Amino acid sequence: MIKIGILGYGNLGRGVEKAIAKADDMELFGIFSRREISADDNDGKFYPASEIGKYKDDIDVVIMCGSSDKDIMVQGPEIVKNFNVVDSFDTHANIPEYFANMDKIGKESQKLSVISTGWDPGLFSIMRTYADAILVEGNTYTLWGKGLSQGHGAAVRSVEGVKDAVQYTIPKEDFMEKIKNGENPDYSPAKAHTREVFAVLEDGADPAKVEAEIKSIPLYFDEYETTVHFISEEELKRDHSGLPHGGRVIRSGITGDDDKATIEFKLDLQSNPEFTASVNVAYARAIYRLAKEGKSGAMTVLDIAPKYLSPYSDEDLREHFI
Amino acid sequence: MIKIGILGYGNLGRGVEKAIAKADDMELFGIFSRREISADDNDGKFYPASEIGKYKDDIDVVIMCGSSDKDIMVQGPEIVKNFNVVDSFDTHANIPEYFANMDKIGKESQKLSVISTGWDPGLFSIMRTYADAILVEGNTYTLWGKGLSQGHGAAVRSVEGVKDAVQYTIPKEDFMEKIKNGENPDYSPAKAHTREVFAVLEDGADPAKVEAEIKSIPLYFDEYETTVHFISEEELKRDHSGLPHGGRVIRSGITGDDDKATIEFKLDLQSNPEFTASVNVAYARAIYRLAKEGKSGAMTVLDIAPKYLSPYSDEDLREHFI
Repeated sequence: MIKIGILGYGNLGRGVEKAIAKADDMELFGIFSRREISADDNDGKFYPASEIGKYKDDIDVVIMCGSSDKDIMVQGPEIVKNFNVVDSFDTHANIPEYFANMDKIGKESQKLSVISTGWDPGLFSIMRTYADAILVEGNTYTLWGKGLSQGHGAAVRSVEGVKDAVQYTIPKEDFMEKIKNGENPDYSPAKAHTREVFAVLEDGADPAKVEAEIKSIPLYFDEYETTVHFISEEELKRDHSGLPHGGRVIRSGITGDDDKATIEFKLDLQSNPEFTASVNVAYARAIYRLAKEGKSGAMTVLDIAPKYLSPYSDEDLREHFI
Repeated sequence: MIKIGILGYGNLGRGVEKAIAKADDMELFGIFSRREISADDNDGKFYPASEIGKYKDDIDVVIMCGSSDKDIMVQGPEIVKNFNVVDSFDTHANIPEYFANMDKIGKESQKLSVISTGWDPGLFSIMRTYADAILVEGNTYTLWGKGLSQGHGAAVRSVEGVKDAVQYTIPKEDFMEKIKNGENPDYSPAKAHTREVFAVLEDGADPAKVEAEIKSIPLYFDEYETTVHFISEEELKRDHSGLPHGGRVIRSGITGDDDKATIEFKLDLQSNPEFTASVNVAYARAIYRLAKEGKSGAMTVLDIAPKYLSPYSDEDLREHFI
């Protein structure tokens, strides 16, 4: 059994806990959290985050479930001194620096990490790479949604008169059609997506004024087609408390002289954090195996062959999956 | 430059020739064919298939473009004695045996092969493996079309009264909706696909009789919803002379307690052989690099990390594709 430690216990950490329970070859060693856990609440699986180092001989892989900027960037280099690590670090601009850091420390400590798993970055990175290598002549598009965009929801909630709100990012059907027709449309996030807001007003707030203010928030909304719906607190809770997301990578190109070809990869997820967690857990298996093979340092999803994620043997994969 | 030899010059071989021309890091060494090439027709790139062994020091990778049963099964074990090899061997039942054979001979000769590339097997195998490893609780479906099914076209052409014909396999929209809704529909090819025939009648043939006969061909049509259109020879040539195909892998499952998740990978191809050829060529790059790293024996697409297919460096991939 592969013994997993979870570091951070928000939505992602809870998702990892559930995903481990579905994997026959894995078991949860413990959850490391900065929260105070009362003795009553603790069923034996919670440990203080600060004490994780004590368990370096008991845990095969640590899955880091904190936020990219505040937690992972700082924790990763510390954790990889003692553990093999999986994370879903997603601050694109910092990936090269973070990778270099994790690679150096991992090589020194003889531990292995895979950074930036999940779905974007993660599975979408894999699809962009395969699609580009195969359809040499073409264009790749990444679109997101329909799904909940946390940053945009927070921006709406900061508007005066808004009591609570969520925001969905929705890919434009006509834009996707243009891609698939090989029209190579000019991309910008605002050209490819619309935004839909569901907001609860504070008592006495003016809906027209609030709507205008939301739609004019720079960068977040001002360039987008945005629809604002005002609903009751009950409706918000009943209909909009999930964390759905999804998206697609589409590459449209030409083979031979002028034959169109389209490669599309699409995800439709009722729970974004649970799916991300499921990807993390599959990569924990991969890292466990690659570390056993003697690999150390840092990897990305592009460095790992598909078979390492699967619980099945090479023979079974050749017989049933090829 | 990676020097490629093409063995076999049908639709696939021609597609490989065109795909190599699009790759900046590859060049065609030559095409090895059993056909007689007159001195006039030969622009210096054609060689007799029987003489390929002479060029073992001039070619980095041979892409085998013959048929699985008659050619590859026999040629592969011979070719891998002298060359690194890519093929799109697709006789599912024989893959374990063929793999074992190629692996043994390749290890002896210190050459490397990747078998069963293309899209199914090939990219679809990769997607089935990733999707199964990530969505542990779920069901995977592979559907084909809309596309030309060569075997079914041949079956129609064998019916008395049919002068010429093509057949398209079409996935059923309502079946795909059931998959995506998580209904886990009971699969059989006939439940998931319809068939559409475009046929030209011989002079004097009875359309009703021919249609009835086509629809009752055992295995090929008798269990399927089949539509037969009779068209003129000119229409057949004008509208149905391409080789389109495509298909999708869909895995629908559950994350956490009861959150639905769907992973879908879809191809839509105007030229099936040209796209298959494009996959072959990307794997030729992978095999070239892996052989340089000292690997020998046989691999499948599940054994090869995505980065090996790409012309870009690891640094570029991390910066632009992750």
